[in-house]
Amino acid sequence: MSQFSFHSPVKAFFGFNAIENLHTLLKPYKRVCVVSGRTSIDKAGFKKYLDMYFKTKEIFYFSEIEENPSINTVIKGGKFAREKKADVVIGFGGGSPLDASKAIAAFATNNKGFYELLSQDELDNEPLPLIAVPATCGTGSEMNNYAIITDTEKMDKVNFAKDNTFPKYAVIDPVFLRSLDKKIIYATAFDALSHGMEGFVSTRANPFSDSMAVTSMEIIMATFADGAIATSDETLLNFLYGSTLAGVTILHTATTLMHALGYWLTNEKGIHHGTANAILMPYYLEMLRLKKVERYDALAAIMQKHSFDIQKWQSELGYDVSLKEIISESEIEAMVDYALEKKNVEYMPFKVDKSFVMDVLVRY
Amino acid sequence: MSQFSFHSPVKAFFGFNAIENLHTLLKPYKRVCVVSGRTSIDKAGFKKYLDMYFKTKEIFYFSEIEENPSINTVIKGGKFAREKKADVVIGFGGGSPLDASKAIAAFATNNKGFYELLSQDELDNEPLPLIAVPATCGTGSEMNNYAIITDTEKMDKVNFAKDNTFPKYAVIDPVFLRSLDKKIIYATAFDALSHGMEGFVSTRANPFSDSMAVTSMEIIMATFADGAIATSDETLLNFLYGSTLAGVTILHTATTLMHALGYWLTNEKGIHHGTANAILMPYYLEMLRLKKVERYDALAAIMQKHSFDIQKWQSELGYDVSLKEIISESEIEAMVDYALEKKNVEYMPFKVDKSFVMDVLVRY
Repeated sequence: MSQFSFHSPVKAFFGFNAIENLHTLLKPYKRVCVVSGRTSIDKAGFKKYLDMYFKTKEIFYFSEIEENPSINTVIKGGKFAREKKADVVIGFGGGSPLDASKAIAAFATNNKGFYELLSQDELDNEPLPLIAVPATCGTGSEMNNYAIITDTEKMDKVNFAKDNTFPKYAVIDPVFLRSLDKKIIYATAFDALSHGMEGFVSTRANPFSDSMAVTSMEIIMATFADGAIATSDETLLNFLYGSTLAGVTILHTATTLMHALGYWLTNEKGIHHGTANAILMPYYLEMLRLKKVERYDALAAIMQKHSFDIQKWQSELGYDVSLKEIISESEIEAMVDYALEKKNVEYMPFKVDKSFVMDVLVRY
Repeated sequence: MSQFSFHSPVKAFFGFNAIENLHTLLKPYKRVCVVSGRTSIDKAGFKKYLDMYFKTKEIFYFSEIEENPSINTVIKGGKFAREKKADVVIGFGGGSPLDASKAIAAFATNNKGFYELLSQDELDNEPLPLIAVPATCGTGSEMNNYAIITDTEKMDKVNFAKDNTFPKYAVIDPVFLRSLDKKIIYATAFDALSHGMEGFVSTRANPFSDSMAVTSMEIIMATFADGAIATSDETLLNFLYGSTLAGVTILHTATTLMHALGYWLTNEKGIHHGTANAILMPYYLEMLRLKKVERYDALAAIMQKHSFDIQKWQSELGYDVSLKEIISESEIEAMVDYALEKKNVEYMPFKVDKSFVMDVLVRY
């Protein structure tokens, strides 16, 4: 056991009706900026909930977060919150709005250019306090300070994380997942599972992140093993708790090569982030096996214990095919070139070289 | 899984040489108030370390914390920090100095009477930032906001915990445990173990605290099973990590009847807090068994897995005797009367009545 650090600073309220804690959490605030995507806030019933129970607050909706939120959007959101004189931000939705809400809370109190603020170790002013309300079961973003923002000109993703971009609170209530499509539930559960797996083999893993990673993987795989009925409250609750713990995991470990490769599939092919990880997962596991990564055996044991069948769930997602049937060999090469430039690769438990990765992706 | 909340807000740096993080952590501060007991700070080498490496800081030592710190002491410490214009507090030592340092950091910025500030939901001013450096392996105090202070007039203990009495950082370095006596190591490990056990059966237990409690108990029992050589770095590291996780556990669950009874043994008979729990542990387990507490079976399974032999370690502590050989039956009754008045009892997994507790303590 070498030296390591750990914490889980976001105070999380979890379970059905957890949303009722909002009454207490919003008490000190008057002007609420709600950051979300265009439709989920209506569809999930969150807007209706806020409008019904918080009539004494001024609520301003910034419902413009696209999938893979852009620099322009978070700058615009920061300006919106600043002009409305919001004193608190609520982020609602999947990874995109939650990540964006962290940056928006920062730009609300720091009127600067994106790259200028990104380059600073510390923000000039404290961000607005942020309450994160996840509406998918994959991101775990509510539990960490990561804010993945897309530079649409460079077609690249950057992480705006700072020491104080953590949400103050997370309100994690499965009720807002009830309107989700089955595919989104499975795709986001695969995202959470990839966080657990990558966190478990990351060179930055420590005993605390291991506890979180293992518990998270066990819950998610056990739920898949139970059939993962997408309309069952139990399924939503389990996936959501697994996702939350996986979010604490990657706060400590970061993600690795699977995420780096997956970003390319999302950027270039528009494949959902979680689905991209589901497509790549068998290849990633095969790389760990071939490189005789010490923790591969433990991972394989957990999968075996839960008879975890990746292919079955890939087929539910419509991607029960090999990578070569989705993209060409030259595209695979472009994807690998892109991924190897990413910082994520540094945390892999073996030295990653292009020919090895290509070999597994093309021939496995 | 019903609704629950969880977090672990203290950023912990753990492992040999973790202390070197102090250089970074103290950077923003100039005037350091170090709160400790009278002797441990010299004996463990912490004073020498500070004086050697922090020559550019003004360091003020308040080395007056007694075992079971009194109201007078924390008021005096708060005044000391205020008068020295300290901008940060370091708490160093076992549970007593760490708990006291939380209250001292609060009284440093809030010049009020003890019971006046205790009665307030919120402090008027933010406490001084606090860095907790544990020097025993039992308290877990570095990971939570609990501050158990003794009212020497009423011969009672009160908890000064507030939302912002958490340490900002914990620096957990086994090097400062090397000078500890074997008995203290075992007694404090029993304290940590009682936190794990009580947290596991507490009615406030939740899936997050369960992860912490189970991992903590497993590490501590496995270390005892390995012989718990008190001079081995591995032993210190394991007990300390177990203690830290148990500190996160009771942040969520609080302690229960074992602690409430143990307080009496400490208050009235001067028995070390950890030793008191070691004496009471078999009786506590017997109560859980008799009441058919659902989680008793899981507890028993963990103990069996590690062939955990309480009596063997009681004998190392010099208390391999029944309770009746330590105190009289009428004293046992006084202890039970005291304990049943304590809030801890509310979190027991069965309805606690006096005759049942008496019966187990006297006849088992």
